[in-house]
Amino acid sequence: MLQPDRFFDPEPRQKSIALELYAGIKDLPLICPHGHVDPALFATPNYRFGNPVELIVQPDHYVLRMLYSQGIAYERLLTQENPREVWRIFASHFHLFQGTPSGMWLAHSLETVFGVTEKLSAANADASYDQIENQLALAHCSPRALFERFNIAVLATTDAATDTLEQHRAMRAAGWSGGSKVIPTFRPDNVVNLHALHWRKHIDQLAVVSGVDIGNYAAFVRALEQRRIEFKALGATATDSGVFSPATEPLSAQSADAVFQRALNGAASADDAARFTSHMLFELARMSADDGLVMQVHPGSLRNYNPEIFGKYGADRGFDIPVATEYTRSLRPLLERFGNHPNFAMILFTLDETTYARELAPLAGAYPSVKLGPPWWFHDSWNGIRRFFDQVMETAGVYNTAGFNDDTRAFPSIPARHDLWRRAAANWLAGLVVRHMIDLSDAETLAQALAVGLARRAYRL
Amino acid sequence: MLQPDRFFDPEPRQKSIALELYAGIKDLPLICPHGHVDPALFATPNYRFGNPVELIVQPDHYVLRMLYSQGIAYERLLTQENPREVWRIFASHFHLFQGTPSGMWLAHSLETVFGVTEKLSAANADASYDQIENQLALAHCSPRALFERFNIAVLATTDAATDTLEQHRAMRAAGWSGGSKVIPTFRPDNVVNLHALHWRKHIDQLAVVSGVDIGNYAAFVRALEQRRIEFKALGATATDSGVFSPATEPLSAQSADAVFQRALNGAASADDAARFTSHMLFELARMSADDGLVMQVHPGSLRNYNPEIFGKYGADRGFDIPVATEYTRSLRPLLERFGNHPNFAMILFTLDETTYARELAPLAGAYPSVKLGPPWWFHDSWNGIRRFFDQVMETAGVYNTAGFNDDTRAFPSIPARHDLWRRAAANWLAGLVVRHMIDLSDAETLAQALAVGLARRAYRL
Amino acid sequence: MLQPDRFFDPEPRQKSIALELYAGIKDLPLICPHGHVDPALFATPNYRFGNPVELIVQPDHYVLRMLYSQGIAYERLLTQENPREVWRIFASHFHLFQGTPSGMWLAHSLETVFGVTEKLSAANADASYDQIENQLALAHCSPRALFERFNIAVLATTDAATDTLEQHRAMRAAGWSGGSKVIPTFRPDNVVNLHALHWRKHIDQLAVVSGVDIGNYAAFVRALEQRRIEFKALGATATDSGVFSPATEPLSAQSADAVFQRALNGAASADDAARFTSHMLFELARMSADDGLVMQVHPGSLRNYNPEIFGKYGADRGFDIPVATEYTRSLRPLLERFGNHPNFAMILFTLDETTYARELAPLAGAYPSVKLGPPWWFHDSWNGIRRFFDQVMETAGVYNTAGFNDDTRAFPSIPARHDLWRRAAANWLAGLVVRHMIDLSDAETLAQALAVGLARRAYRL
Repeated sequence: MLQPDRFFDPEPRQKSIALELYAGIKDLPLICPHGHVDPALFATPNYRFGNPVELIVQPDHYVLRMLYSQGIAYERLLTQENPREVWRIFASHFHLFQGTPSGMWLAHSLETVFGVTEKLSAANADASYDQIENQLALAHCSPRALFERFNIAVLATTDAATDTLEQHRAMRAAGWSGGSKVIPTFRPDNVVNLHALHWRKHIDQLAVVSGVDIGNYAAFVRALEQRRIEFKALGATATDSGVFSPATEPLSAQSADAVFQRALNGAASADDAARFTSHMLFELARMSADDGLVMQVHPGSLRNYNPEIFGKYGADRGFDIPVATEYTRSLRPLLERFGNHPNFAMILFTLDETTYARELAPLAGAYPSVKLGPPWWFHDSWNGIRRFFDQVMETAGVYNTAGFNDDTRAFPSIPARHDLWRRAAANWLAGLVVRHMIDLSDAETLAQALAVGLARRAYRL
Repeated sequence: MLQPDRFFDPEPRQKSIALELYAGIKDLPLICPHGHVDPALFATPNYRFGNPVELIVQPDHYVLRMLYSQGIAYERLLTQENPREVWRIFASHFHLFQGTPSGMWLAHSLETVFGVTEKLSAANADASYDQIENQLALAHCSPRALFERFNIAVLATTDAATDTLEQHRAMRAAGWSGGSKVIPTFRPDNVVNLHALHWRKHIDQLAVVSGVDIGNYAAFVRALEQRRIEFKALGATATDSGVFSPATEPLSAQSADAVFQRALNGAASADDAARFTSHMLFELARMSADDGLVMQVHPGSLRNYNPEIFGKYGADRGFDIPVATEYTRSLRPLLERFGNHPNFAMILFTLDETTYARELAPLAGAYPSVKLGPPWWFHDSWNGIRRFFDQVMETAGVYNTAGFNDDTRAFPSIPARHDLWRRAAANWLAGLVVRHMIDLSDAETLAQALAVGLARRAYRL
Repeated sequence: MLQPDRFFDPEPRQKSIALELYAGIKDLPLICPHGHVDPALFATPNYRFGNPVELIVQPDHYVLRMLYSQGIAYERLLTQENPREVWRIFASHFHLFQGTPSGMWLAHSLETVFGVTEKLSAANADASYDQIENQLALAHCSPRALFERFNIAVLATTDAATDTLEQHRAMRAAGWSGGSKVIPTFRPDNVVNLHALHWRKHIDQLAVVSGVDIGNYAAFVRALEQRRIEFKALGATATDSGVFSPATEPLSAQSADAVFQRALNGAASADDAARFTSHMLFELARMSADDGLVMQVHPGSLRNYNPEIFGKYGADRGFDIPVATEYTRSLRPLLERFGNHPNFAMILFTLDETTYARELAPLAGAYPSVKLGPPWWFHDSWNGIRRFFDQVMETAGVYNTAGFNDDTRAFPSIPARHDLWRRAAANWLAGLVVRHMIDLSDAETLAQALAVGLARRAYRL
């Protein structure tokens, strides 16, 4: 399925330059500074993935929502009873993914990881299921073996502020050579968002893992700071905040405490929750300026949009819908205070592409602390990446971007995603070379930076 | 004027694939599930169009506003007195349409329908006028003859909820073979929008045609339901709502009635009107879930923006200006209630391209009830269609879109618009093939779907 | 560094057409109807530019902010003490400008104006500094000599409403042949914006230069009108307003006076300032309809975003960040009153590209008074111009745009900017020709219009 010159623009001179640039970066190690792979995969030496459906279909919200959108009930997709039957549904609807990034990632991982070289279809559903199932049983498809095969130099997981990090400790203790390459990322959403599901339980858990009695706002801050130290000790270089809005208006300590007390009493309003998150983004920036953890912000998704699906099947089922997002005014309080701070670093993401050229590139192109993260979620596709290069680079400059991250929980798809990015980068650079905007030697340097160097630098790896 | 390879991207390999794909779909029947052709054209067997100006210039708001924008007074364009003089103005300003979709549609219909093969100009104004006038007098240029010549499989008109539908009945009664191919679409704007011009008169008319005495909100709803049955009986498969905002917040029955009563008493405020429209979108979705008519929503135009032009020349004179439109939060109440309903279907349109990738593709790519309509109004141009494919397809997938509709009142331009869409589709698919994102056989299937199949399915034809 | 076919799309047939179109316009005189060149450059016959750093680095906020974004302190860049050392910093960071418009403008002016033909680098920093310094000392690099060499037909400066215009008078009085080609533009921001820095001082200055005692709003208006007459007498054909919002809601004369009195008493609120600016845009349109000066509006920048940088180094240091901008509703009051006025002309600019297709093209494509200015600030780059053509032209039509303006204070970069625009125009037109959307003869006419004619007409030159 995978042609060597896939994705590249067709004009022959540009394509030959793109192929040359791509050849120089395709085998570089993978830098994965932001993602959602479960660290448990690596904690156990002989961990094996489940069946093909548990690995490829059921955890992938891109795949699930596309099948659901064409009328296939979640009941039929999420059943544990007959995975082969679920695979048949998936294979016989594989055409739905034509032209989509899921289609491209799947084709890549099916072929390169599992040796499935035909487009999936009703006709080959059983054979492909068997093929993958057989591969999964073999040692060379264990997570640790794939980690080596994929040539991953660093893999950051995303871990709740309340996480014990025991999986991270276990994989280091186990003496696995990859152990030090898998690092945690500090994500405090479930305690920062006062209306997070089971917020109170998370606060209690935070108290336990931090050893801080969280009876007021000051203690809450101390607990977070304590945990950040712990995360750093296990290699963390970054934090992540997934918020609805990037507003960053600080509250006074008294106001923050009053809101926090209302939350502890189960009486926080929606407005309280919004103001507290806004305040906490400011406060997390303060912590980052102090301890040097790079602050990531992922705003703009209205989560759990479909109450029926959320009620029956939980979060991350394809019903998180983006909204227009405002950065310029929202980030101003934070940037007024920390934007020029030499120890502060922030990486911004967006689901609203209109902000690339209008707000994010001008910010990243001026503040030394601000870098622009790669296209996120719906936008880390071939055309999404092209639009990112097109709309960001002229104003921000390449060196104010943060390279690539795959942001995936689908471990076998990691090489596919980096490969797509590297091809897109080579293609874009070839377009500049063939237009004499840069020369080939510049392009080679920039290709290395986009593939590896920018991510290393932005995430302080 | 019309080169066979027009519009296609120039790279030779991609172009040859595009031409091959286009050859496979160019002669397929035209599916026209949404438009504004006057059904009276077909009700009378020997109907003849008026003169070239009445047919081509005066009803076309794209043409009128472009001429006005360059300083030509509407008085000079809309006069009934000397059509040949109006044509001379039009022909001598034909350069204004260079590079515009109007220019491309006009070139196509002038050549293929009327045999005018030169660019219009002051020099050939009289000759082209004569040529078209002569053609219009001939039987093969009657609406029914053109309907056959254009190979139209289905043509949906747009008809007010208050319309008697007598033209639709007449064309069926007349025994014309095309009669069953021309179907109405239920559009209740003039009674749903409490501040529509002559709203009270429309309510009275609705009472007459439905046979329901509309003294309160409940009766209003019954009248609408009654009329939907009547529309369905004449072949309607869809409704359409043209609204300023896609807000869909329902009111209680009591609140709805209170607002409706204020409107009957001529006392509805602007806020009443906005809330009632929002409520009615929710209610129309309820009706669609009940009776299976596909619900179209066309939001985001600030109509009649220029009071002087509106006062003198009425609506649809080129002064409807789009605004930024929010879908995610606006549609949530409706989708929470009906989004997963197996009988409900909705087709969304936009004048705000920023919502393609951000809001509409994620919604269409998740909800089985939601399909995304083709580029609308200012955006059904070559580049507008390219941007639609670029920004929608990776997230929504082709199968969650609704194919093409021409949305025109300019009957002779229908083939031109479908031809442009089919070329754009072939060109886009060829771009995927040449990049090995899909193979040629996938592309052939998708080309058929984009040309015909998706529209048939989305509109339940 | 400068290849003759630079920037053009690579497909050979399209490129050869582009080269042909470009050849027809590349040597046309430069029309510069909007910019920020200091008229003092031309007032003194033997004016010489300062050193390379004073000329090229320190006044260019694009250059400064990019260096700052990569951690180079403004102290090191803005020092007067060792310009050669600043140049070394600049040269050794020249790679930051790869792929940016600054990089392309700099390459062009370094080579064509100063004969520097190598990419700047640490290695050639001293040699290039010497080369430019030597050139600057020569008569053929004086502003007047460059003005001739650049083949500038008209150059509009931007001058505060309070400016004495003595430089403009001086250059005319001095008998320089270019004197009548350099014209002022009336920019009243510093008196219209009640919260402008030193507003009260500017009002006093306005009183002095106008001879009107400004004790109330009516006198303020008279003073502005008086000054407009003076600007016109020195050749001005346009005004310019740089505002945060394009709102145009008029106040009653009493309300306007009440706000103005509060401002005179130092008691105007933020809301007062916003309402007064909005009112004044309406009032400035009234004046334009009266006196025929073309009204430019540049909205949408949140200025002086970084208080630390603003406090230390003042305005225009790279920290003006755009925001989403609304035009449709904002401009409605103004357009309702003046949009159809035969003597009124308005040129709109934007930093929010989402408004191109959604709001600005529909407005420019309908109102005879409205033209759309070229891509502005962050967007007058190769891709920014491409997006402008792509998103504007199909709806507005070429003839409703205002051609190009360079909008620069960097005098030596003027030819670079026009060259980039002319190449972009030729490239875009070649894309239409090779797709048979227009023919070559249309393209040649449009190329002339885009290079010269549209700007002349829009600015009434």
